[in-house]
Amino acid sequence: MRPQIVVFGDSITQQSFGSGGWGASVADIYSRKVDVVLRGYGGYNTRWALFLLHHLFPLESSTPLAAVTIFFGANDAALLEGTGKKQHVPIEEYKENLRTIVRHIKDRSPNTLVVLITPPPVDQQGRREFARSMYGDKASELPDRTNEVTGTYAEQCVALAKELGLPSINLWSKMQETRDWQKKFLSDGLHLTPEGNGVVFGEVVKIFDEAGFSDLPFDFPQHSDIDGEHPEKSFLQQCPAV
Amino acid sequence: MRPQIVVFGDSITQQSFGSGGWGASVADIYSRKVDVVLRGYGGYNTRWALFLLHHLFPLESSTPLAAVTIFFGANDAALLEGTGKKQHVPIEEYKENLRTIVRHIKDRSPNTLVVLITPPPVDQQGRREFARSMYGDKASELPDRTNEVTGTYAEQCVALAKELGLPSINLWSKMQETRDWQKKFLSDGLHLTPEGNGVVFGEVVKIFDEAGFSDLPFDFPQHSDIDGEHPEKSFLQQCPAV
Repeated sequence: MRPQIVVFGDSITQQSFGSGGWGASVADIYSRKVDVVLRGYGGYNTRWALFLLHHLFPLESSTPLAAVTIFFGANDAALLEGTGKKQHVPIEEYKENLRTIVRHIKDRSPNTLVVLITPPPVDQQGRREFARSMYGDKASELPDRTNEVTGTYAEQCVALAKELGLPSINLWSKMQETRDWQKKFLSDGLHLTPEGNGVVFGEVVKIFDEAGFSDLPFDFPQHSDIDGEHPEKSFLQQCPAV
Repeated sequence: MRPQIVVFGDSITQQSFGSGGWGASVADIYSRKVDVVLRGYGGYNTRWALFLLHHLFPLESSTPLAAVTIFFGANDAALLEGTGKKQHVPIEEYKENLRTIVRHIKDRSPNTLVVLITPPPVDQQGRREFARSMYGDKASELPDRTNEVTGTYAEQCVALAKELGLPSINLWSKMQETRDWQKKFLSDGLHLTPEGNGVVFGEVVKIFDEAGFSDLPFDFPQHSDIDGEHPEKSFLQQCPAV
């Protein structure tokens, strides 16, 4: 059975199969080696994600799970005073929820590579512009998220990864290293442009390739290796069960 | 268990998760409803595809298979006299191989929606330019494919679909309805540009939506429907097994 990579997260994961999306790009480069399974839930925080664990990662499943990316925090970090207050999760709980998610996946399959991804930075001006474009004068004057608060969530995510010995991607820091990150990487101050997707893709693949994913064998012969006169030879060799 | 759509074909399917790819776009619009499984094999013809059937679609599998797109012919139609002669499959055999693929999938799950897709048209000038860019003066003067021959394969594909009562997409005809299809839809005279991918996406989704795929339920509550104070209520209702 072909191994799977599950991409698990909020809207930034759900949208990762849109044009230029990082999830689709991962599926593309590992095609014929690994299946990429999309489990993105727009608007979700880690508290709600816990309800999905046994459904998405049943403990009794035998499908080989090569890797899981856990990419939450953008909604947990919504401010209690803003329009996203329902999504807010206190920072200590965010960290413990992430720990529960990791523990569940490791209980299911201890060798699965678990990658923690922090939320991206927040461009508050971009959020304001987006709110005005949606709601006009009725847009709330209060920010729904601040870059500073989201940064503290990112810090806890990375700290947990260190504590558990897992690879992590500090997207919050990484993106802010680039000039004009606000418009270059974010479409509405929060979600990713194709370039922003490119950053996630690059970081994720770096970790996967270090784990040897690109060296995984193709499922079936490359067409150039097939014997045109006796194709059955090529297939019998690689897939004796035919 | 979530239903699957398997996209099965040659390089035009294998590349369908690249940027703007039609396969990724299908995964995107049915996310949280259906999983799209990529089974594209660059360079393959229908003769070689037969060796994969029992591996890709095991008869004893219980995974619900909502749909399969079968998208071969671009390689079968390679000319016996050209550089792709190893890939050539006689037209009668192409049709019978397609019939075998359909029969196998219907044996596995009679209610699976099977969609036959013809090869796209061939831009011979684009193929020549591509060969020169790859091999310079050593590029073969003989065409590897002609639009006319590929058109006869497309015709047989559509005829088989009619015979079996299956939906089909005549990409060969459809694309040629648009002015400048040669450059607009094809990147090297054969493979698809993002716009070409858009044509496949539009046609595939039309068929899927007629079959009711967009009305399929989401796997878990939308975040706007979650009770912030008592999230367990929303989840217990929709997933009683938690």
